[in-house]
Amino acid sequence: MPKSALLFFTDTHRSADLRYFGGFEVHDPFIALQVGNKRIGVLNALEFGRGLKESTFDEIIPLEELTAAAEEAGVGQPGPADQIVALAKKLKIKSFDVPGEFPSFLLVKLLDQGLDISVIDGPVFPGRECKSDEEAEFIRQGNRCSAAGFAIAEKMLRASTIKGNRLVLDGKTLTSERVRFAIEVACLEKGAIAADTIVAGGDQACDPHCRGTGPLRPNDLIIFDIFPRVTSTGYFGDMTRTFLRGTANDVQRNIVAAVAAAQKAALKKVKAGAMAHLVHGECNRVFSERGFETKLTPEGAVGFFHGTGHGLGLDVHEAPRVGAVKRRLRKGAVITIEPGLYYPGLGGCRIEDVVQVTADKPKKLSRYHYKWELSD
Amino acid sequence: MPKSALLFFTDTHRSADLRYFGGFEVHDPFIALQVGNKRIGVLNALEFGRGLKESTFDEIIPLEELTAAAEEAGVGQPGPADQIVALAKKLKIKSFDVPGEFPSFLLVKLLDQGLDISVIDGPVFPGRECKSDEEAEFIRQGNRCSAAGFAIAEKMLRASTIKGNRLVLDGKTLTSERVRFAIEVACLEKGAIAADTIVAGGDQACDPHCRGTGPLRPNDLIIFDIFPRVTSTGYFGDMTRTFLRGTANDVQRNIVAAVAAAQKAALKKVKAGAMAHLVHGECNRVFSERGFETKLTPEGAVGFFHGTGHGLGLDVHEAPRVGAVKRRLRKGAVITIEPGLYYPGLGGCRIEDVVQVTADKPKKLSRYHYKWELSD
Repeated sequence: MPKSALLFFTDTHRSADLRYFGGFEVHDPFIALQVGNKRIGVLNALEFGRGLKESTFDEIIPLEELTAAAEEAGVGQPGPADQIVALAKKLKIKSFDVPGEFPSFLLVKLLDQGLDISVIDGPVFPGRECKSDEEAEFIRQGNRCSAAGFAIAEKMLRASTIKGNRLVLDGKTLTSERVRFAIEVACLEKGAIAADTIVAGGDQACDPHCRGTGPLRPNDLIIFDIFPRVTSTGYFGDMTRTFLRGTANDVQRNIVAAVAAAQKAALKKVKAGAMAHLVHGECNRVFSERGFETKLTPEGAVGFFHGTGHGLGLDVHEAPRVGAVKRRLRKGAVITIEPGLYYPGLGGCRIEDVVQVTADKPKKLSRYHYKWELSD
Repeated sequence: MPKSALLFFTDTHRSADLRYFGGFEVHDPFIALQVGNKRIGVLNALEFGRGLKESTFDEIIPLEELTAAAEEAGVGQPGPADQIVALAKKLKIKSFDVPGEFPSFLLVKLLDQGLDISVIDGPVFPGRECKSDEEAEFIRQGNRCSAAGFAIAEKMLRASTIKGNRLVLDGKTLTSERVRFAIEVACLEKGAIAADTIVAGGDQACDPHCRGTGPLRPNDLIIFDIFPRVTSTGYFGDMTRTFLRGTANDVQRNIVAAVAAAQKAALKKVKAGAMAHLVHGECNRVFSERGFETKLTPEGAVGFFHGTGHGLGLDVHEAPRVGAVKRRLRKGAVITIEPGLYYPGLGGCRIEDVVQVTADKPKKLSRYHYKWELSD
């Protein structure tokens, strides 16, 4: 029977699957493959020694060996396709399975060279969706970093003074940038890098992925979405809280209460075997019952127009999605539950926590309080 | 004549080309295309409003419109292939060019659906290699962040006291982690995120991409490689310096002198039209003349075993590579020149600067001094 192998050509920055597979980080594309239960990395001289020490590969083949083999076979300036052909010959493998994300240029070249390639339609490692206790703990650690971010942000907001339409702290206007910097430092102190942290107040928060810039305003809803990656493990945390410095009005209170209720309702439905779209549907139901409409306008959507959540792990967005798509939640999956409401003129609110799916009530992997109105 | 279009399906975290094309960041894969000179983004409700404000797309099509069209055509739970087919129909496009990195699963599905797809073999935007004055300034700004990192690292090393085989600062042992944290904060203060910063001393530095852990030792060569990404522009800086706290021995001095001489020799050859492999060859020549051997051992390579440099921009590693491959340097290209030597037992040294290729002498885009021996 001819051997078939799982073949990668990417870097671990682009592919969390490869990070999962090889257990270490490499920032340039390289060849890796699984033959039976054996994991093989092909590393150039630059990464070879580190691969021996840091990776989980069972064998590391020097890239230079494959380059030399390709040159011997008559190829000038061999590229990855030639190196893979040389590898296939060396290992006597004729057929490969490649991830859906495998680069098209290589697929075309390898097919041209007569190799038999099947593209995997779906996840490469379906098991990645279900997290081990160790992985759940890594994610919890990420969320501890998020929580450290909220703590410093809340502290800054509470310590700030309201002066007209500005918040002033230590004599200077409090801005998104200033609070974000403090959050980023708090995450670094705990060993995580928080890129693209969202500190967005007022209408800025109505674009859920707007990072936020400029002065933060009193009496505005301000969304803090912090998703740090712990450097030592590669796993992410991901939490969101909404704060308001000053005094909220009734509409703002209704918005926040609705989002909190939607989150609670969705969490109640999270269970192994539950349909993800029904969890999402709970948020829609709560918002609709409370009179919060969702629609697309020429300037963008308003209401609740994103998924209720997503898987979290080595990628900040990974399987399973908790949205409109019909799919069962699997035991061990770690997902965010993050309903939100966004209305320009009123502002935005999102509350996000992370849970692990069990046969019973979900296990919470994130912790920070929900007190949001920070008045004097 | 049937129209042909350039088609993307990726996110801007994975594809700097898409970041370059759409001018803003989106962290989930989306459809984008160029038809003639028109740039079109297909964004879901979550990103639509932000796309209108932040992107450089001439037109933004709501993803929901394509999903609805696919559903009308009888597809249940439409995926990206179905959405692209609906888009092709809407825009009357039958043939697409896709980047080499285009995901194979989509290529296969689109071909199955009868679309005509050509995979681009080579860069999608060859012009990205040649930087405008504005881009060069963005990269210079990134390098200013790197330099701020060296400044704080050097300050900490100088302020540290040698106690036996430890460096002590403010009563605590100086470690890679501690210095890296200070560097990361210095970069954040200047608006950049420095991921994977290398602070590696002694034998750790002999794996050029080892980040470094634990106590830094007196009289060891310590490599500092800082490549921060400026958040507001997306462009990277990338510089390396090697310091030693204490007193160097003759071998260390010879190593550092050889690396400095190799960098100088390579820089002399950098010029529009010059062959990249001859620039790289200068480093090999200098090392070989000075008796520094390069070879692969079972534990990893020793000597000088990586390329002399790489392009720098929206990716930390991009075209052109300055290594063994025969290729001419183009005017405007921004490249690193970073020779290094690595010998376990002796340590490692790398010096890296960034220049822009001109018709004459290269324009330096990085600035930090080269004094490396930090004695009392």
